[in-house]
Amino acid sequence: MSKFNIKSITRENIKKLKPYQAKEIPSLIKLDANESPFPVKLSEIVSGVDIPLNRYPDPEAKELKRAISKRFQVRPESIMVGNGSDELIYYLILTFGGPVLYPVPTFSMYGIIAQSVGVETVESKLDREFDIQEEDFLNLIRLKKPSLIFLSTPNNPTGNTFSAEKILKIIDVARKSNSLVIIDEAYVPFCSHKGFLPFLKDFENLLILRTLSKIGLAGLRLGYLIGDEKILNEVSKVRLPYNVDSLTQYIATYALKDFYSKIKKFIAEITKERDRMLRELSTFKELTVYPSEANFILFKSRRTNQIYEKLLKEGILIRNMSPLIKNALRVTIGTKEENSQFIETIKSILRKRI
Amino acid sequence: MSKFNIKSITRENIKKLKPYQAKEIPSLIKLDANESPFPVKLSEIVSGVDIPLNRYPDPEAKELKRAISKRFQVRPESIMVGNGSDELIYYLILTFGGPVLYPVPTFSMYGIIAQSVGVETVESKLDREFDIQEEDFLNLIRLKKPSLIFLSTPNNPTGNTFSAEKILKIIDVARKSNSLVIIDEAYVPFCSHKGFLPFLKDFENLLILRTLSKIGLAGLRLGYLIGDEKILNEVSKVRLPYNVDSLTQYIATYALKDFYSKIKKFIAEITKERDRMLRELSTFKELTVYPSEANFILFKSRRTNQIYEKLLKEGILIRNMSPLIKNALRVTIGTKEENSQFIETIKSILRKRI
Repeated sequence: MSKFNIKSITRENIKKLKPYQAKEIPSLIKLDANESPFPVKLSEIVSGVDIPLNRYPDPEAKELKRAISKRFQVRPESIMVGNGSDELIYYLILTFGGPVLYPVPTFSMYGIIAQSVGVETVESKLDREFDIQEEDFLNLIRLKKPSLIFLSTPNNPTGNTFSAEKILKIIDVARKSNSLVIIDEAYVPFCSHKGFLPFLKDFENLLILRTLSKIGLAGLRLGYLIGDEKILNEVSKVRLPYNVDSLTQYIATYALKDFYSKIKKFIAEITKERDRMLRELSTFKELTVYPSEANFILFKSRRTNQIYEKLLKEGILIRNMSPLIKNALRVTIGTKEENSQFIETIKSILRKRI
Repeated sequence: MSKFNIKSITRENIKKLKPYQAKEIPSLIKLDANESPFPVKLSEIVSGVDIPLNRYPDPEAKELKRAISKRFQVRPESIMVGNGSDELIYYLILTFGGPVLYPVPTFSMYGIIAQSVGVETVESKLDREFDIQEEDFLNLIRLKKPSLIFLSTPNNPTGNTFSAEKILKIIDVARKSNSLVIIDEAYVPFCSHKGFLPFLKDFENLLILRTLSKIGLAGLRLGYLIGDEKILNEVSKVRLPYNVDSLTQYIATYALKDFYSKIKKFIAEITKERDRMLRELSTFKELTVYPSEANFILFKSRRTNQIYEKLLKEGILIRNMSPLIKNALRVTIGTKEENSQFIETIKSILRKRI
């Protein structure tokens, strides 16, 4: 079997680059980095936290990586943190170029960022149940030899997980085509499948993307990429040295440690409420409700625009998925009270026939 | 005179892109964005501030732009904010491609990011006083027709401002070559020249880059780009919708409003201390000290490594500029006490001849 070769898919201009050195040298008086020397502590604005905002953030995010490392049982060297997953997707595409392959419909940023960087995108249509069409997908890998393959599972905006067997097959075939597979596990915390971290040791062309955005901290902007150190070393060449600010590093570390029990409670509550919402929505004959393992539910109706507008009139904002998915709406799981109000409003809308 | 044409320097793949729409729709119950509905307030971690961290940040950073707008008397539409200036440099090069022209030595990220994106870089050597060699620079503009020209003034790491006359000449010639000129004013707050904001109305190919990093908030990561709305519209196509997190938006807004009187005091103190440091360092015959209008001073010595190491041994960290500038050291202006200790240590090092 041909060995996976990281160099052969790294763009020429990236190969020549060395990672920007922003190393820390221990000192008593720090006069090297053009910072302001006057302490600006967060506690001046909000009390209780002492972060010297006048200093640049730790470019290696050591504390934060340690917290991720402990939480997911991966080595700190196998982690790269980003200003949201979005930034990490940018870095991956900047580093490895195209073609970029992904199923559709899926998270729109894979395609948008590929276009921003200027590389070819290749799309494979999902089947009627929104699972991957294996033959088509594998053929595209063999034919196009993509540098990068993005798989969001559970998939946004459809809500389903892709077949794990198909994913493993894809990773295996991708390896032979020297393609990296990035599994975007933004919604894995809400899903019965444990995700693909255990497979990292089996596939050196596999990377996992995670985020704090769906589990309580979207305002923070923190994503992390987990995978082979050799791959991350290449990606780190295009990473801005101070891409995650001091406050985000501090709060994300806290979130993954002491605060995590609360996050787990959030996740359990969302999952329970999602299952209730699935049951309740399924009672409406007019709606086609798709299975979901995420924190949202996709459903179709012949009256999507009307439903969307009437909900909005009641102050309830959901996502109209047209034209990406025809006649489809996506509702995020809210609090128990919000969900109930949503269901009640849907009920009253559907009762009135046109 | 040929009209400056933004379209002709936008890369083909960017032209086809539309800005990602992350618009806010007013609502009572927000169930559209796959966020967690459970409030996570910063005040749970640090008291006194109420930011709903479970929600995505304002993608348009409206409050923050209003604060920048008021502070600098520019329209909010003429402002783009970034996760540090670095990110905005990335976006500019992603949008407009190369060649990218800049003087050397200067801030290293222009070249590094251009290389990351994979575009040609063109360098023009500064003269012995670290000012721009006008003929060489203008010839390179005419010959290479760069998409982007970066000028850091005051220049890092040399500390001097470039001649304003030369800069205006460059902008004018650049306009004829359809080149954008980005003046990086990171250090303008410490400088006697007021910067080039007043010239924005005269040159549609001029953009100004500013940052909070040097004036007290490096840990926050906030840069802003000010310029023609038509240009920013193109750049916004490659901007990640949530590139500046909620906390940074909140704190940066506060910094530009209520906190700004304190920032002004910092700046005044730094400027005074820089002038004292310049006087004191100039008394050492062994050192060549360069004029500075920034918050750092560049100086040369035949014993740079020795000075650097001995300072470090005393716990004082400065920047060794080799090999970028031979025999040069760069010292950031610290507190009065830190500066005095630096001067005393330098004195004791230079007293002992080898």
